[in-house]
Amino acid sequence: METEILVVGGNVAGRGFVSSILKINPQTQITLVRRENKALVPCGIPYIFGTLKLPDNNAVSDESMVEKGVNILVDEVTAIDKERKLAVTASGEKIIYNKLVLATGSLPVVPGIGEGGNFNNIYFIFKDLDYLTLLKNYLKEKKKVVIVGGGFIGVELAEELSKLIDGSITIVECGPTCLWQSFDLEFAQMVEKILCEIGIKIYKLETVKKFIGHKGNVKQIELTGGGKLDVDAVIFAAGVYPNTTLGKAIGLPLDKFGAIKVDKYMRADKDIYAIGDCASKQDYFTGEPVSVMLGSIAATEAKIAAHNLYNLTGMFRNGTLSIVLTSLNGISFGSVGLTEGNARVRGFNTKIGSVQVYDRHPACLPGAVKQIVKLVFDKETGVILGGQACGGQSVGELVNIIGLAVQTRMTASQILALQMGTHPLMTPGPTMYTITNAAENSLVK
Amino acid sequence: METEILVVGGNVAGRGFVSSILKINPQTQITLVRRENKALVPCGIPYIFGTLKLPDNNAVSDESMVEKGVNILVDEVTAIDKERKLAVTASGEKIIYNKLVLATGSLPVVPGIGEGGNFNNIYFIFKDLDYLTLLKNYLKEKKKVVIVGGGFIGVELAEELSKLIDGSITIVECGPTCLWQSFDLEFAQMVEKILCEIGIKIYKLETVKKFIGHKGNVKQIELTGGGKLDVDAVIFAAGVYPNTTLGKAIGLPLDKFGAIKVDKYMRADKDIYAIGDCASKQDYFTGEPVSVMLGSIAATEAKIAAHNLYNLTGMFRNGTLSIVLTSLNGISFGSVGLTEGNARVRGFNTKIGSVQVYDRHPACLPGAVKQIVKLVFDKETGVILGGQACGGQSVGELVNIIGLAVQTRMTASQILALQMGTHPLMTPGPTMYTITNAAENSLVK
Repeated sequence: METEILVVGGNVAGRGFVSSILKINPQTQITLVRRENKALVPCGIPYIFGTLKLPDNNAVSDESMVEKGVNILVDEVTAIDKERKLAVTASGEKIIYNKLVLATGSLPVVPGIGEGGNFNNIYFIFKDLDYLTLLKNYLKEKKKVVIVGGGFIGVELAEELSKLIDGSITIVECGPTCLWQSFDLEFAQMVEKILCEIGIKIYKLETVKKFIGHKGNVKQIELTGGGKLDVDAVIFAAGVYPNTTLGKAIGLPLDKFGAIKVDKYMRADKDIYAIGDCASKQDYFTGEPVSVMLGSIAATEAKIAAHNLYNLTGMFRNGTLSIVLTSLNGISFGSVGLTEGNARVRGFNTKIGSVQVYDRHPACLPGAVKQIVKLVFDKETGVILGGQACGGQSVGELVNIIGLAVQTRMTASQILALQMGTHPLMTPGPTMYTITNAAENSLVK
Repeated sequence: METEILVVGGNVAGRGFVSSILKINPQTQITLVRRENKALVPCGIPYIFGTLKLPDNNAVSDESMVEKGVNILVDEVTAIDKERKLAVTASGEKIIYNKLVLATGSLPVVPGIGEGGNFNNIYFIFKDLDYLTLLKNYLKEKKKVVIVGGGFIGVELAEELSKLIDGSITIVECGPTCLWQSFDLEFAQMVEKILCEIGIKIYKLETVKKFIGHKGNVKQIELTGGGKLDVDAVIFAAGVYPNTTLGKAIGLPLDKFGAIKVDKYMRADKDIYAIGDCASKQDYFTGEPVSVMLGSIAATEAKIAAHNLYNLTGMFRNGTLSIVLTSLNGISFGSVGLTEGNARVRGFNTKIGSVQVYDRHPACLPGAVKQIVKLVFDKETGVILGGQACGGQSVGELVNIIGLAVQTRMTASQILALQMGTHPLMTPGPTMYTITNAAENSLVK
């Protein structure tokens, strides 16, 4: 078969790319090949285990793509002849394309399991609805679950599992706190306090030294600190790595994290683009290769690739800024760019501005939630490097304001003088507004 | 008595200014003179009539100012000798100051009542807690209330009164829709639909021609269209005008709206600053004098005055951008800068990008609310001129993202390529995110 564009991978990057291309030219002939039977919302995976009730509620319908004439194949591209622009699939399909877009995503890190070999009750968070549906059913019966990794998936999964499982849930995190890569200590401690309040145990600066099993099942975990935990099930949420088997097979250069090297327009080779978790990223602040894999970044890269597919434009990627959000037991947390700690590690002198205020005014209005905002500035120039926030649902967009300030390289004194809208039912009062006051607080220190 | 800084007015502008000055130098000697016994949250006034239950819940405590040594006088400055830097109050107090800050605010427009003269049951929205407390008590008993003016105060008051009053509430708006100055027709229609659903009647393109009274009370209103409405009480919410009696008395030049002329640093004269509703504004897009009075703008001007009080800095006001928010029956609305209609009236050719999506993903997550975002761009350059949004509580901060994009003069193609954080419980999905997709939609038209 022939197609104008061949997209390999049907997750955020692939779907986002198709959506943009069809906006630009609805007549474009697109073939999308993905392995999974059904597409899903990747950031929704933890909610499969609790809030979403049925795992299928996290499925993404193919309807809108199919309606617009996209040819979706549930299959796997196994080989590509770059010269002839020919792809071959596992089922033997031969696809001639003009433009190739690799959106092959990422896979969970599967560490060496060590002594004892394979165990039945060690699980991973694959972006595969069939696997996750089975996993949810297995876990329902379990009494002692250990999650290895206190990153975003780890903490969200722990909270959601606490709604599913009538037993103990434990997080084992190798770093100093849960979410330590994205939050300074004071925010990480708030996260951990919420987790503890809902009964989740956390072991920090520890990792699994040894699995102790019986008849193919892990029964106990020995931690590096010497402690032992009884377990019925172990879930690894210890990070992901770029899925670039195909990219590598066709000779595309990879960066040190194994991601396909791309330029600012997401080009990997002539007529080949790579987007999302499988594509290389440069740190927003230093330009160094960096490993950040987020659906939101994939979505932006998909747009950039689509708008630069036939000719280049002024829309390009200017480094990758990490903007991360989570919500635990009704409290939202978000972080943009550099934490205070990360900024110092990279060599910045920092100035900090913080604010605590209720997100409605007067604060006695029903539904008011305390907002805490911390902004990190470069001491020398006042340029904003990042920020963290917690509070109610609006923290999502609040953090995006900080993200926009970082992406437009604003200084504390520019932020101080910004006009921001306020309303009793939606924000703190005008004189207490978080971001402008946090900027001011950094300046008057 | 002597003081370093004399602030006249204790509302958003005055309080915000004091807060900033005390951050800059906690030792500053400040005297604040205000007429009202208690300060209040001005944007909270409508909520006094319903959600807030007790009017005193909308009071702002003086505690934090008093603790920091601010001298608060409940009094009125009646005369000022600019040369001698001497203020005299109604109670006869003489205050020698070094810097004078006028934050005298605004007053409700009181139109000529026409035939019949004064009526007892015509009310205004004064920013005075004692008056509002009495007003609330009066209105409780009323069965037929007419609100003249379908602006922000009018519509919020109507909704809140519907919780207080067991009777009919009617809005009379002289413009084509409620909130027509801030919203294009499709958003204004959503606002009106919500108001109608809670039983509020709206007369548009009409105003009061005549009050028909009996024994000092209005009994009927005759509208310009000829219709007659029976009434028990009339509330005017037909705009405000700068309260600049004092400024005028001391010879400060006023603009065509009666506001005290100030420069970009809020300076009205040597050692005299004016901030908030009483200070002149320049339109963000054209630089022309404009009349916009918002607490959020007052708060920004307060900061700018404080940081430029002794020496000028790079923090100045670059035109006044209107960012307005409201929430009606749980649905939030916001508008920034120019609507499509207003942009055309001013001479712009526009390009529009719109998005409709749920604010959680997948959309079946509990609590998901539909978000609608419309962005207005200049057709020639792609620069963003404004935007409107509706949805859940996060619309407040969402609109502030648009506000920041306007204030940094971003183009549609820059906005398209922005990185924005997303999370299932806080935002639409990464490929559906409102602002970036609205920008994209404007480009592919």
